[in-house]
Amino acid sequence: MELPLNHGLFGRLRADAADDWRAYTHHPFIRALGAGTLPREKFEKFLIQDYLFLIQYARAYALAAYKHEYLDEMRAALNTALFLLNDELSLHIKYCAGWGIAESQMAAAPQSLELLAYTRFVLECGHAGDVLDLMVALAPCIAGYAEIGETLAASTAPGNPYQDWIETYTGAPYRDSVTQAIIALDKLGASRGATSRYPVLLNIFRTATRLEAAFWNTGWA
Amino acid sequence: MELPLNHGLFGRLRADAADDWRAYTHHPFIRALGAGTLPREKFEKFLIQDYLFLIQYARAYALAAYKHEYLDEMRAALNTALFLLNDELSLHIKYCAGWGIAESQMAAAPQSLELLAYTRFVLECGHAGDVLDLMVALAPCIAGYAEIGETLAASTAPGNPYQDWIETYTGAPYRDSVTQAIIALDKLGASRGATSRYPVLLNIFRTATRLEAAFWNTGWA
Amino acid sequence: MELPLNHGLFGRLRADAADDWRAYTHHPFIRALGAGTLPREKFEKFLIQDYLFLIQYARAYALAAYKHEYLDEMRAALNTALFLLNDELSLHIKYCAGWGIAESQMAAAPQSLELLAYTRFVLECGHAGDVLDLMVALAPCIAGYAEIGETLAASTAPGNPYQDWIETYTGAPYRDSVTQAIIALDKLGASRGATSRYPVLLNIFRTATRLEAAFWNTGWA
Amino acid sequence: MELPLNHGLFGRLRADAADDWRAYTHHPFIRALGAGTLPREKFEKFLIQDYLFLIQYARAYALAAYKHEYLDEMRAALNTALFLLNDELSLHIKYCAGWGIAESQMAAAPQSLELLAYTRFVLECGHAGDVLDLMVALAPCIAGYAEIGETLAASTAPGNPYQDWIETYTGAPYRDSVTQAIIALDKLGASRGATSRYPVLLNIFRTATRLEAAFWNTGWA
Repeated sequence: MELPLNHGLFGRLRADAADDWRAYTHHPFIRALGAGTLPREKFEKFLIQDYLFLIQYARAYALAAYKHEYLDEMRAALNTALFLLNDELSLHIKYCAGWGIAESQMAAAPQSLELLAYTRFVLECGHAGDVLDLMVALAPCIAGYAEIGETLAASTAPGNPYQDWIETYTGAPYRDSVTQAIIALDKLGASRGATSRYPVLLNIFRTATRLEAAFWNTGWA
Repeated sequence: MELPLNHGLFGRLRADAADDWRAYTHHPFIRALGAGTLPREKFEKFLIQDYLFLIQYARAYALAAYKHEYLDEMRAALNTALFLLNDELSLHIKYCAGWGIAESQMAAAPQSLELLAYTRFVLECGHAGDVLDLMVALAPCIAGYAEIGETLAASTAPGNPYQDWIETYTGAPYRDSVTQAIIALDKLGASRGATSRYPVLLNIFRTATRLEAAFWNTGWA
Repeated sequence: MELPLNHGLFGRLRADAADDWRAYTHHPFIRALGAGTLPREKFEKFLIQDYLFLIQYARAYALAAYKHEYLDEMRAALNTALFLLNDELSLHIKYCAGWGIAESQMAAAPQSLELLAYTRFVLECGHAGDVLDLMVALAPCIAGYAEIGETLAASTAPGNPYQDWIETYTGAPYRDSVTQAIIALDKLGASRGATSRYPVLLNIFRTATRLEAAFWNTGWA
Repeated sequence: MELPLNHGLFGRLRADAADDWRAYTHHPFIRALGAGTLPREKFEKFLIQDYLFLIQYARAYALAAYKHEYLDEMRAALNTALFLLNDELSLHIKYCAGWGIAESQMAAAPQSLELLAYTRFVLECGHAGDVLDLMVALAPCIAGYAEIGETLAASTAPGNPYQDWIETYTGAPYRDSVTQAIIALDKLGASRGATSRYPVLLNIFRTATRLEAAFWNTGWA
């Protein structure tokens, strides 16, 4: 099934932040990953920060669960948070073990400047605003990885050492969850006045997209 | 100058919550206050809780200052919070001294059920939602007292022991601040999608209005 | 297994708020429930508000999940929130159906003054303070029902129409979860400075206990 | 008067994060500033982000005002927030005009990665934790500039183009406010269990200090 990347509120935000979106989804890091030429050290730094990121990402969904209006939205956000802390984190730990990175090493690593910037920006949007502000701040992460997975899957070379990582973001269950999220964002936007609030939401989306792009270079310099 | 009670978002909310609004602004407590027949003990209980209320009210404006988007809104909210904690609280303490109630007595009193319900509902609206949810939750308090002051001023009997209290809410500076707040709420609503969000906002407004009505009987039973 | 009601921080708080604790756990509502003499109408009002309460209670655990420091604490809080919204809510709906109360009726009921006071006080403690303030505010609810269940189980008369309800709070899994919560609170308190913060924590605990007591009479007057 | 840099909780944190603290307060940017050799372009970038920073800093004090326990703490935090948005911002605008930077230019500039990281980290600490977590996150900013001002004042060369900027942080009123803040942090720490919470607080302080160091290079790369 095709990702509904042009659908509703997300589609509008993505189109209006096209330059930043492109810089994020076609970042040199991504192109090197697809070509299999990304230095291993850079990838490992990213994997470590991605571990720390998953925890903050789960916190964002816990906050969303608190802020949501309806029972089904609350349940969905709680399930996502638990899925991140259980399934996703386990998969990531297992995957990183294959690169010789132990969980204890990742848990002890300091959070990078880029990690702090992106995750705290998202969480603080959630406190300063409502659940729509929060979900718009999360949208580049939710939808971007599926889009990146799609681009990479079409271009990756045989024998690419990053093949397994790429496939994480191309599977049907993952793509389905992204499709659901894009649809849910549009529905949430309709009930929380996205049209009138559009300039502020676009500003949030644009900043989050730029911070996602910066995250590809994550790790204290 | 006439209070713009039918203006914009506030006017719409007030009209759609007309029954609850009337129960609040024409509460038996208010009618007895206007007639000068309110038992002194009831009034004193109210004064004590009103002292505690002012502090929570200031906290709500501090939270609003944090959540506001623009510098002038932030400054206005901070000034209101300080005005409440400095000028309003001093006036209240001075006024209560005339009834033989010391500040230490008020500061030591437990917060009543009605106080906790109203103030924590308002503050929690502010956390769960955005600054519009918060300001809608505060609106019945902001505008209601000016409307009540107006009604009472027109009907109060000579020699009413509560005359001074009533006049607090009939002065031009107070009424001007209420007019500004009603206009600001409409502007905020326009930029934060009040029309799409109206059912949720009406629900907040209605609950806050009912809690304000309950507050007239404040004090642990 | 005996409930560790005198254990650690919870035990200290319970002892220091003994009067309020007794008024809550031996409330006339509870005694009438145990004797089987509680008017059905009062019980039904309570059941309806208890439905609405479960939702707010789940929100408090979602907030706790966001605020917790460690992965296992986050997971536990998320699991509790989901358990409340799935298992507990389903059980409650099924139980209420036996009293002729449909879910739609409960979902449409306005939140009572007592419900708003208690739940919003708890949630706002969580925002103003840290996760320890939040968990202390939740403690009377967590531990009180197990203690009440124990008291009632020892005294209930045969043929008591409220027997099934009482048994909800006497089962081993429920009591185990309460034991875990009392132990977790002590551990959390140790790492978050409960001893130095004790006066403020006691104040929160006392207020929450009084609000729990008030909740037995829940429903708009 | 000497700055009480070794006093109480702040002194302990500063000593235990000595390496990070030194990297922040003796950053190459600072040394170049003191020598008068800092490239003008770098300084101007900093000035623009510092304008945006002041606004976020004021938001942090508004949040602190909401979270504080006592009236005098609330008033102090509100006054600081207003002082930042009125006096400090005006001074900064006036100062920047001297470098040919208009307010409109600063207001329109995107927030840098470093700005977002530091300010959102601070604010999010305030939401996840209590007011002590928030004030510890703010401490490197509060005390660091006074210490830097002191170091620079002792070493700056005549004709240094950055002389006026340095003097902002060496005046008696500024130093007094820092002294008060260091004393207030110790008092707050005592009442909120700083000793038991020390490892978490040190972690916050260290991260905030590293983010302050990163802020000297602020501006999107």
